[in-house]
Amino acid sequence: MTHLPERLLAGYRNFMAGRYSAESDRYRSLAKDGQSPTTMVIACCDSRAAPETIFDAGPGELFVVRNVANLVPPYAPDGQHHGTSAALEFAVQSLKVSSIVVMGHGRCGGIGAALNPSAEPLSPGDFIGKWMGLVAPAAEALSGNLMTAAERQTALERISIRYQVANLRSFPCVKILEGKGRLTLHGAWFDISTGELWVMNPETGDFERPQLK
Amino acid sequence: MTHLPERLLAGYRNFMAGRYSAESDRYRSLAKDGQSPTTMVIACCDSRAAPETIFDAGPGELFVVRNVANLVPPYAPDGQHHGTSAALEFAVQSLKVSSIVVMGHGRCGGIGAALNPSAEPLSPGDFIGKWMGLVAPAAEALSGNLMTAAERQTALERISIRYQVANLRSFPCVKILEGKGRLTLHGAWFDISTGELWVMNPETGDFERPQLK
Amino acid sequence: MTHLPERLLAGYRNFMAGRYSAESDRYRSLAKDGQSPTTMVIACCDSRAAPETIFDAGPGELFVVRNVANLVPPYAPDGQHHGTSAALEFAVQSLKVSSIVVMGHGRCGGIGAALNPSAEPLSPGDFIGKWMGLVAPAAEALSGNLMTAAERQTALERISIRYQVANLRSFPCVKILEGKGRLTLHGAWFDISTGELWVMNPETGDFERPQLK
Amino acid sequence: MTHLPERLLAGYRNFMAGRYSAESDRYRSLAKDGQSPTTMVIACCDSRAAPETIFDAGPGELFVVRNVANLVPPYAPDGQHHGTSAALEFAVQSLKVSSIVVMGHGRCGGIGAALNPSAEPLSPGDFIGKWMGLVAPAAEALSGNLMTAAERQTALERISIRYQVANLRSFPCVKILEGKGRLTLHGAWFDISTGELWVMNPETGDFERPQLK
Repeated sequence: MTHLPERLLAGYRNFMAGRYSAESDRYRSLAKDGQSPTTMVIACCDSRAAPETIFDAGPGELFVVRNVANLVPPYAPDGQHHGTSAALEFAVQSLKVSSIVVMGHGRCGGIGAALNPSAEPLSPGDFIGKWMGLVAPAAEALSGNLMTAAERQTALERISIRYQVANLRSFPCVKILEGKGRLTLHGAWFDISTGELWVMNPETGDFERPQLK
Repeated sequence: MTHLPERLLAGYRNFMAGRYSAESDRYRSLAKDGQSPTTMVIACCDSRAAPETIFDAGPGELFVVRNVANLVPPYAPDGQHHGTSAALEFAVQSLKVSSIVVMGHGRCGGIGAALNPSAEPLSPGDFIGKWMGLVAPAAEALSGNLMTAAERQTALERISIRYQVANLRSFPCVKILEGKGRLTLHGAWFDISTGELWVMNPETGDFERPQLK
Repeated sequence: MTHLPERLLAGYRNFMAGRYSAESDRYRSLAKDGQSPTTMVIACCDSRAAPETIFDAGPGELFVVRNVANLVPPYAPDGQHHGTSAALEFAVQSLKVSSIVVMGHGRCGGIGAALNPSAEPLSPGDFIGKWMGLVAPAAEALSGNLMTAAERQTALERISIRYQVANLRSFPCVKILEGKGRLTLHGAWFDISTGELWVMNPETGDFERPQLK
Repeated sequence: MTHLPERLLAGYRNFMAGRYSAESDRYRSLAKDGQSPTTMVIACCDSRAAPETIFDAGPGELFVVRNVANLVPPYAPDGQHHGTSAALEFAVQSLKVSSIVVMGHGRCGGIGAALNPSAEPLSPGDFIGKWMGLVAPAAEALSGNLMTAAERQTALERISIRYQVANLRSFPCVKILEGKGRLTLHGAWFDISTGELWVMNPETGDFERPQLK
C-alpha cells in the first residue's frame, strides 16, 4: 500500500504522462546544471493562489517561499531559525535572482485573522496570533474607519504587501543590490474571484492592473 | 509602465487565457465559499519542485508551505514569529486538513549547504547557516562514512524528511489528531532528473516508488 | 451672432442630424404625454461621468440630479431651499420612480477636497468646504491608516455612497415606499479609467462588479 | 445577483461595447490627467433633456449640475449646505471654466408646480414648494394676464432662465471674471417636442433660434 493520498498519486500520474513526459529534457538538464531562476516569489500558503499557476511557470523558473500571508519578517540577525530570511539570503546571495515579488491575494485567511483576532488562540502556542502580530499595528490603524469588513480586508492585504517590500530592504544585501540596479522589488495582489492581478506601483504604492497586450 | 518582469506578465496572460478562462466558475466559488483543501504540503522553495506541478493540482487543492529544504522547526511556544508553525497551526486547526505531506527532492541546495557549510556565511546574518543548523547533527552523523558526495546528499535529504515528519508530531494538535485517525502524515521525495516520486513507508521509514496503475 | 460657445452649437447640430432625427417620434410623444422615467440617478457634476452616457440612456429614461460628489443631504424640513431634497421628493412622489441609484466615481474632485481641505477656501463663501463638510467625519475616520492617497480616495468615495443611500432613507416617503417594496435603492461606482462599473451589494455594502452576460 | 435594475445593466453593456471601447484611450487619459471641461451647464433633472445628449458631448466636455428647473439660488454665504453654489464655486475657481450655460426646457414640471402650487405639498417637508419658491414672485406676476396655461408655462420657463443668469452674477467670483472677459454666461431653452434649441440674446433677453450652418 502506498502511503500517500490517492488524489496526489492520481495527480502525479497526470504529471508524468503530461508535463514531465513533454519536458523530460528540461528536467534532466535542470537536475544536471542546477537551478538558476531569475525570480523569487514570496507568496501565501493559500491553496487558491499558487504562483506557478498564476504565472504559468515551468520548472526552474520561480524560487518560491510560501508562508501564511506572504510575510517578510524584518532583518534580525539574532541566531534564531528564520525560514523566510534564510530563503531570501539563499535566493539573493547564492542564486542571484534579479527580482523579488511579494504576492498577496484577496480573502487571505491570515490577514483576516490579523483584523479579527480570535479571543481564543487556534492552539496553545498561538502561532498564527504571533505570526500575524507582524501586521497588527497596521490592522489597528484601519479600525473604526467606516469601511466594510471586505474593504478593510483588501486595504490591509495591500498595506501589508507594501510593508513586506519595505522589510525586504531591511536586509543589507537586498538594499545594496537594489541600489546597484541588480535587483528589483515588486508587489502584486491576486483577486481569486476574478483572476485579476494588481501590480504595485513602486512610486505611489498603489495597486494597478497591468495593461495586457 | 507595469512594474513586473515581462516574463511574469506573459505567464499571467497565459493563465488568464487558459486555466482561469476554463475554470472561472471554480475560482469564483473558491473565492465565495473560501478554501477547503484536504492536504497540506511542506515543500522546498526550489524552482524545480513546485507541488502544484508535481501533483497536477488545481486551485483549492493544496495548502502549501515552502521554505528552504522543507523543514519543520520543532514545537517551540516561545512567542517568536514561527512562520512554518503558524502555517501548520492554521492548516490543522482552522482548515482541518486530513493529511500533511513533507516533500523533499534531489539536489537540494539547502541540504547541500548543511553537508558542506561554507567557511564564509552567505551574508553577515548567516540565515541559511542558522536555518540548516536544524539538520546539522544529522549531517554530522553522515560524515566520514565512505559514501560518495551524491550518496550522502540523497541520504540526508531522506533522513531530513523523516526528521520533519517526526517534528510534526512535536505539535500537540498534530499528535492528538493523528492518534484519533483524523490526520495522516506522509513523506515524499522527488527526483528532479527522472521525475520519479519516492514515498516514505511509514513503518520502515524507507522510500519506495508507488505502483502507478 | 449666436451667444453660445461654438462647440455646443456644433454638438447640437449633430444631435439634430443624428439622435433627434432618428427619434423624433419618441421626443414628440415624450413632450405630449410627459416624462415617466422609472429610475432616478443622483450623480456627480464631473464631466467624465454622465449617467446617460454610462447607462446608454435615451430621452425619457433617467431622472437625474447632479451635484458635487453626488451627495444626498439628510432630511431637514426646515424651510430652506434644498435642491436635492426637492428633486428627490418630485421623483418619488410625483413621478413615482421605482428605483434610485446613487452613482459615484473614481478621482472625484469633491471627495478629494474632503480628504485634503485647502487651507484657503476656493472663494470667501467656501461653498465647497461647507458642502463637502457633509462627509468630513468619514474623511477624518480614514486619516492615518497607512493607505495610499489613492486608496483613501476610493475608500471615501465608496463610504460616501453608502452614506448617501442611508440618507435617502431619512426621507419618510423613501423609507415607507422601500418598506412596501415599491422603491429600491442602489449604489454604484464608476471607474473613469477602465470604464468598470462597481455595484453596491445592499447587504454587505461592498462594491462588486456585476456579471455582464 | 447584481443589485441594479436590468435596464441599466443592459445600457452599461452597450456603453462598454460601444463608446468606452471606441474611446478607452480618452477615458484613460481623462482619468490620469484629470478633467478640464471648459463649459459648465446648469440643467434640469428632467429625463428628456440631458445636456450630453442635446449637445452630443463626450467624456470630459461638460461639467453639469442638474436640479429641478435648473435654478441658481442667489449667493448666500450663510454656512448652509448649498449644492448648486458649491458646484458653481468648484467649476469657476478650481476648473476655471470659460462659460456657463443655464439650460431650461419646455413642459418643465418644476415650473408647472410654481405656476400651479398644489393645495397639498408633495410630502410633509414640501421641498418642491420651497425650492420652486425661488421663482414664486415671477409666477405670481404672470397670473391673471390672459395668456393660456401653455403660454404662461413657456413664459415662466424663459423668465426663470433670465433670473438664474442674473443670480449667477450675485456670486462675486462670477461677476469679477465676467468683467475681465474670462467667463461668459448664457441662457438656452430646449423644446422637447421639436428638438429646437432657443438661445438667449444677452442684450435683449429674448430667446432666438441659432443659425445652424
